[in-house]
Amino acid sequence: MNIFQIDDTICAIATAQGGAIGVIRVSGKDAIAITDKIFQPANNGKKLSERESHTLAFGNILNDKGEIIDEVLISLFRTPHSYTGEDSTEISCHGSAFILQKVMQLLIANGCRTASAGEFTQRAFVNGKMDLSQAEAIADVIAANSEASHKMAINQMRGGFSKELAILRDQLLHITSLMELELDFSDHEDLEFADRSELLELVEKIKGVITNLVHSFSVGNVIKNGVPVAIIGETNAGKSTLLNTILNEERAIVSDIHGTTRDVIEDTINIGGVLFRLIDTAGIRETSDKIESIGIEKSFQKLRQASIVLWVVDSSRIDDNFIQLTQKLLPELEDKEVVIVLNKSDLGNDNPLPEILTSKSFIHSVRISAKYKTGIQELEELMVKLASLPELSQNDVVVSNVRHYEALKHALDNLYTVKDGLEMNLSGDLVSQDLRECLFHLAEIVGGEITTDEVLGNIFKHFCVGK
Amino acid sequence: MNIFQIDDTICAIATAQGGAIGVIRVSGKDAIAITDKIFQPANNGKKLSERESHTLAFGNILNDKGEIIDEVLISLFRTPHSYTGEDSTEISCHGSAFILQKVMQLLIANGCRTASAGEFTQRAFVNGKMDLSQAEAIADVIAANSEASHKMAINQMRGGFSKELAILRDQLLHITSLMELELDFSDHEDLEFADRSELLELVEKIKGVITNLVHSFSVGNVIKNGVPVAIIGETNAGKSTLLNTILNEERAIVSDIHGTTRDVIEDTINIGGVLFRLIDTAGIRETSDKIESIGIEKSFQKLRQASIVLWVVDSSRIDDNFIQLTQKLLPELEDKEVVIVLNKSDLGNDNPLPEILTSKSFIHSVRISAKYKTGIQELEELMVKLASLPELSQNDVVVSNVRHYEALKHALDNLYTVKDGLEMNLSGDLVSQDLRECLFHLAEIVGGEITTDEVLGNIFKHFCVGK
Repeated sequence: MNIFQIDDTICAIATAQGGAIGVIRVSGKDAIAITDKIFQPANNGKKLSERESHTLAFGNILNDKGEIIDEVLISLFRTPHSYTGEDSTEISCHGSAFILQKVMQLLIANGCRTASAGEFTQRAFVNGKMDLSQAEAIADVIAANSEASHKMAINQMRGGFSKELAILRDQLLHITSLMELELDFSDHEDLEFADRSELLELVEKIKGVITNLVHSFSVGNVIKNGVPVAIIGETNAGKSTLLNTILNEERAIVSDIHGTTRDVIEDTINIGGVLFRLIDTAGIRETSDKIESIGIEKSFQKLRQASIVLWVVDSSRIDDNFIQLTQKLLPELEDKEVVIVLNKSDLGNDNPLPEILTSKSFIHSVRISAKYKTGIQELEELMVKLASLPELSQNDVVVSNVRHYEALKHALDNLYTVKDGLEMNLSGDLVSQDLRECLFHLAEIVGGEITTDEVLGNIFKHFCVGK
Repeated sequence: MNIFQIDDTICAIATAQGGAIGVIRVSGKDAIAITDKIFQPANNGKKLSERESHTLAFGNILNDKGEIIDEVLISLFRTPHSYTGEDSTEISCHGSAFILQKVMQLLIANGCRTASAGEFTQRAFVNGKMDLSQAEAIADVIAANSEASHKMAINQMRGGFSKELAILRDQLLHITSLMELELDFSDHEDLEFADRSELLELVEKIKGVITNLVHSFSVGNVIKNGVPVAIIGETNAGKSTLLNTILNEERAIVSDIHGTTRDVIEDTINIGGVLFRLIDTAGIRETSDKIESIGIEKSFQKLRQASIVLWVVDSSRIDDNFIQLTQKLLPELEDKEVVIVLNKSDLGNDNPLPEILTSKSFIHSVRISAKYKTGIQELEELMVKLASLPELSQNDVVVSNVRHYEALKHALDNLYTVKDGLEMNLSGDLVSQDLRECLFHLAEIVGGEITTDEVLGNIFKHFCVGK
């Protein structure tokens, strides 16, 4: 199927199953005519086709035998003033799966096609209602589950990022056109339209802005996917119990048996407005010849990805073995915030931490009992403090999408080449080619003629149906 | 809380969590003003308070700091032309739990109260938009999961039952007023306004209609809650495997251990448009002194409630024990449709059923392998045939609500007394009192002045929030 095919009319259930109300969306050139075929306005009211855009009609959906399927309210939107830019209706039914299915069947019998995931938003993009980065933000808006990720997605949806990119592209186009103009008059060797030092300054400035955007991804990614927190420690120190306590559910299987957790368990939780991605790992156990089994090697991999490490320690087992383990682990931890979680404090053991740990500034500690849920609040507050996410305002542009991040990195590479070219006084055609590539990568982000079906397919398949 | 309190403005999320769209409903005298406080129309458009009823406004929901929470569409309904009869708005947001909660918080901060279950429908009832039986049908419409239960609920929601009751009440009121007029002139002994034989005829006619309604409950109840099908049989005959096969999921725990199923497991499934309530029971096992343990006694209770019995028999164990069991069970089965499900047909045993079974007309049999899922379709077709539900048209009035059924039975009792009174030529005041009681019970069904808060509370607590 050609992804740009928009000459048919699509329909989808846009609400989740259950609830008092269920909404079916219809969009396309026959949306109003098809909906009219199954709709009987109340009180001999006007047909939808005779009504104004942005009005609501009350009446019945009838099947082909004239039987009433439901009493509904229909919202009417006329092109181009709709979400997709096409003629659209939204049928608000009682929230019954049975009724919604019946109405969908009637729409399909009358000429609609079931929409695929994200197809409404895709049409909005194709019809120029929004650019690609705005379309992508819609899915983020729906998925956002913290204050910061919500702000970031809303800003992107409303075109904050697009505006920033538009300014950059205008400036780059200006440079490019100057370089290419020079090219056209290349016979006149002495003619130089573009003052190279001024151009260099401008390129440097643009490079700075894009560098900031690239760097913002580390924040954006963490906001969107959660601050990665690895829970590590020796076997049976209480790592899984701690995970369950923080998540407030029985996520990991807990037992007294050493090595109960074999797989890496991940889950996210919002603590004090900050999203954390908690990663439970297999316990680190000393074996005869080497410290790691496969599961333990995985723990180390996860450890490297984490920005915060909760190192769970059985406070009654701070012994020689522990100090040996400390020496092996410390080199892995130096670029992270580490919290030594002294567990089993209920057992009344107050062994002090070895000096090798207390002397490091990135090492923090907190005493808890995962079992009796004491000290947990203190631990959570410490986690929020260590996450140290910047306070976002609704106007801050933060890159949170891997596709955008990749494109920006490519654009940045091109700019470095442009800069070198200008400095080395390379000819205009060489520099201009790099400038064009840089523009291409920036254009990729917002979409346009150059966007392939494959790219679009990849983007919209992650949407929910009905959006 | 007074259930009739409707001077405040309520709000609720009316859609299930998840999905592309989430809808928040607001209703009450300040619904439009409160929504206006948090809504910023796009393109400097008009405030909601300046717009017409049944129009849609596009714009942003802003928090108290002026930050955008979401881009939304708002449906506007002005009293009395709304679901509740009050001023109402419906805010259509992106389907994010985070956003919906934020918007709810803003509405509450600006003067709304969270609606309780069914409160919108309750207001519709209190404001005279529908009677009580119609209000009750709304919950049935949402819950309906078969063609027949959907038709039944839609007809009741649209007032089919109410109209039938209104006719009966008119006729009864006519009789009552004649009787009471006679009473007023009781000094004139020879004066008889009401021809007693004509009245008797009318009472008889009404009694016939109400009797039909009372009888329709057995059908209505089965349509709404499913045809009760008990799955019985000896331990380890494969009852739970059969249940799982029909339900197409692992509902009951299956093992080779005799007596694995201890509790009664119930679940409904729609087969060929008919809703069945399948009831798995503990296996019937011969013990030294008596056949039933507590679990087995429960099986017998469930058996008595069933209209279809699937008697699962291990076809390799049709022996003397089985014939003994047959003799004990048969008396319990005579008013039911019984299907002997000869299971484990894959083991290749073709023992014939004993004559004591094959001679009964209510006994049917089918050979299956629950394990290999053979013969299941034949069994399901037989179940649909034995369910023999009448084909409903959308205009058939069928009672499916226990409350209505109870009220109709009371009304019927009163009519018997009225009839006796008329036949015994009792004085008008006595007969009239029974007529009034009959009218009271019919009025209970549609609600009215006489409906108590307790009755309303009981009805609406079963609704979902947002309806």
